[in-house]
Amino acid sequence: MNYEHIFDQAIERLHSEGRYRVFIDILRNRGAYPNARCFAGHNGPKPITVWCSNDYLAMGQHPKVIAAMEEALHNVGAGSGGTRNIGGNTHYHIELEQELADLHGKDGALLFTSGYVSNDATLSTLAKVLPGCVIFSDELNHASMIAGIRNSGAEKKVWRHNDMAHLEQLLAETDPDLPKLIAFESVYSMDGDTAPIHAICDLADKYNALTYIDEVHAVGMYGKRGGGISERDEAAHRITVIEGTLGKAFGVMGGYIAADSKIIDVIRSYAPGFIFTTSLSPVLVAGVLASVRHLKESSAEREGQQAAAAFLKSSFAQAGLPVMPSVTHIVPLMVGDPVKAKRISDILLAEYGVYVQPINFPTVPRGSERLRFTPGPSHSEAMMRDLTAALVEIWDRLELRLAA
Amino acid sequence: MNYEHIFDQAIERLHSEGRYRVFIDILRNRGAYPNARCFAGHNGPKPITVWCSNDYLAMGQHPKVIAAMEEALHNVGAGSGGTRNIGGNTHYHIELEQELADLHGKDGALLFTSGYVSNDATLSTLAKVLPGCVIFSDELNHASMIAGIRNSGAEKKVWRHNDMAHLEQLLAETDPDLPKLIAFESVYSMDGDTAPIHAICDLADKYNALTYIDEVHAVGMYGKRGGGISERDEAAHRITVIEGTLGKAFGVMGGYIAADSKIIDVIRSYAPGFIFTTSLSPVLVAGVLASVRHLKESSAEREGQQAAAAFLKSSFAQAGLPVMPSVTHIVPLMVGDPVKAKRISDILLAEYGVYVQPINFPTVPRGSERLRFTPGPSHSEAMMRDLTAALVEIWDRLELRLAA
Repeated sequence: MNYEHIFDQAIERLHSEGRYRVFIDILRNRGAYPNARCFAGHNGPKPITVWCSNDYLAMGQHPKVIAAMEEALHNVGAGSGGTRNIGGNTHYHIELEQELADLHGKDGALLFTSGYVSNDATLSTLAKVLPGCVIFSDELNHASMIAGIRNSGAEKKVWRHNDMAHLEQLLAETDPDLPKLIAFESVYSMDGDTAPIHAICDLADKYNALTYIDEVHAVGMYGKRGGGISERDEAAHRITVIEGTLGKAFGVMGGYIAADSKIIDVIRSYAPGFIFTTSLSPVLVAGVLASVRHLKESSAEREGQQAAAAFLKSSFAQAGLPVMPSVTHIVPLMVGDPVKAKRISDILLAEYGVYVQPINFPTVPRGSERLRFTPGPSHSEAMMRDLTAALVEIWDRLELRLAA
Repeated sequence: MNYEHIFDQAIERLHSEGRYRVFIDILRNRGAYPNARCFAGHNGPKPITVWCSNDYLAMGQHPKVIAAMEEALHNVGAGSGGTRNIGGNTHYHIELEQELADLHGKDGALLFTSGYVSNDATLSTLAKVLPGCVIFSDELNHASMIAGIRNSGAEKKVWRHNDMAHLEQLLAETDPDLPKLIAFESVYSMDGDTAPIHAICDLADKYNALTYIDEVHAVGMYGKRGGGISERDEAAHRITVIEGTLGKAFGVMGGYIAADSKIIDVIRSYAPGFIFTTSLSPVLVAGVLASVRHLKESSAEREGQQAAAAFLKSSFAQAGLPVMPSVTHIVPLMVGDPVKAKRISDILLAEYGVYVQPINFPTVPRGSERLRFTPGPSHSEAMMRDLTAALVEIWDRLELRLAA
């Protein structure tokens, strides 16, 4: 048994497919987002513009968030010091859970250390508590949902993306006496399309299934108070479990679910991924509290971001760049090859000070590698015009076909 | 299918076994640890003393840690804004990984959002990359290790706790041509005993197995630089993967592994729990950097904590309280019944302002419910004398048998 050799082969496979990842070394400049500094391969930090952050609304730089974190740091210190059950439950955690429950019109919520963990822990625990549960999963569901479903050991039926006829067919052919859970996302973050929430809930009603929605790319960003697509579409009350993140539009870190207090109590009591882990730092929780409260009141960030996304999509389309048909804030540009996507990204960074990460397998299917831009309220129209011109020049230089 | 009924039953089971958990609502007072404030069930906050925190050395309150976090908050903002690969890799992350690799004498390290995730992601990925891998797991391994092993889908052989003859028997009866991984902890946190690291490594050498050690209750606390029991026992170079947490002795939040850079590269490239999650907030990472660097230089916190643990164990033993035979900083007091453990804890909080959480199933086996004290360098001898007197009074009141 030659372990070294096996590890070498595993890494070699990535190189040979052109998808070995090199992490770029950056620091953002607080108060000046999307400006940042890049370290690797230069003599000292070089100024860059970030175009691929999930801090969609720049709330990670918001003065209220920074002030709340500073206050908590001075008030209680750095970490929570324990699990939620053993010493790590603070008043901040309780307040934030109440705030998130209210955001989604539910009577309970539960914090996790990340969105990944909230999906993994909740889906696996929910299906285990319901004997014989069958999970119906959209084929484009995120890796963390897939992990939770697989880790539950429950039977899984995958429906073709957003295909209601296929979902109904799978529901209809399943034993009516078995518990059922339909799991899907509101915004699919690599394509920028959305789920038909009401149609899915209609099927859930018809076949007596529970529903689980991942709103990580939508909370803070859609709906009058930032409750996500389920708020915008007035569907939140029809969903059993709404899952969200604190690390994207809310700008900090962590994940959560909102649901009936009974379900929250079950997950809180049975999920190993919740029970056996140090709770979120109260400093983070305090920052999120400020962020959620602000975005419940203020729509300026949401409107600014939607305007920027619309401008950039239009700018790309007018220049003939292959922008994908997103109906959300996500602006994906199809390349279709991992090596070329990396090359474009490298040129943008080295020559234009533009940071956008190539997205490759396993994040997206092979052959659909892309660049994914996330303009926010702080990306100016001038920046977007410059970006478009840079991309046209590179597309030209690399002899990539422009869209018809 | 009546979902409500199933959820009700799940919660009822916990009540009937006396292990339904109620989270206590507290806030620590920065700079005055172990002092804190308790909210629930009182008119306004009530002062308490915390005796069950995993912030073992009070580093979560250390001025250097607070200052570093404040600086990062001002420098770069609240969150990282993305996964390590997509916008969420910062200079702080890279520096901390170098610092942790150095701490354990390895050439690489990798950060995760928690210790739970580092165990789950690393063990499941490592075993998947090694086709046919058999994992040998100590029976008292933590829930997160068990999750990682189960999620790997690999064959698992459980050896009786710290029983070298049993481990060797299981290794000897396994096909010599299969990859093997021995997974264990350095400090078992509910009993306070330690693993015979060199004996385990001898067996690993003999049977060509990789080794994986969980040092979450030891990093920062043992060894001259805080490298854990593997540093204290001069065994770190014999271990393939050392896993640790940033949320206990280092006082903040997060988890990590240290290993050869080749293994780090494999985990970094293949573990979904690493790839698909927003990276640690740079604010937390900056705090940990200060904490790790301080504890590499300073032994005062370690010595103070060991002295406090020795004093408390001795004080309990002299009073005839059933202190368990821990050889580490953990001071567990056996109760053996979930309802009584909860009752003692409730009296301590309500009448004495002492906060210690009862530890019940599934954290420990049924019938071995206990109170687990973690005195630190800031718990004074007077506090420990008062605590012992309170426990003797309660043991008397509840007619619990005192140790012979």
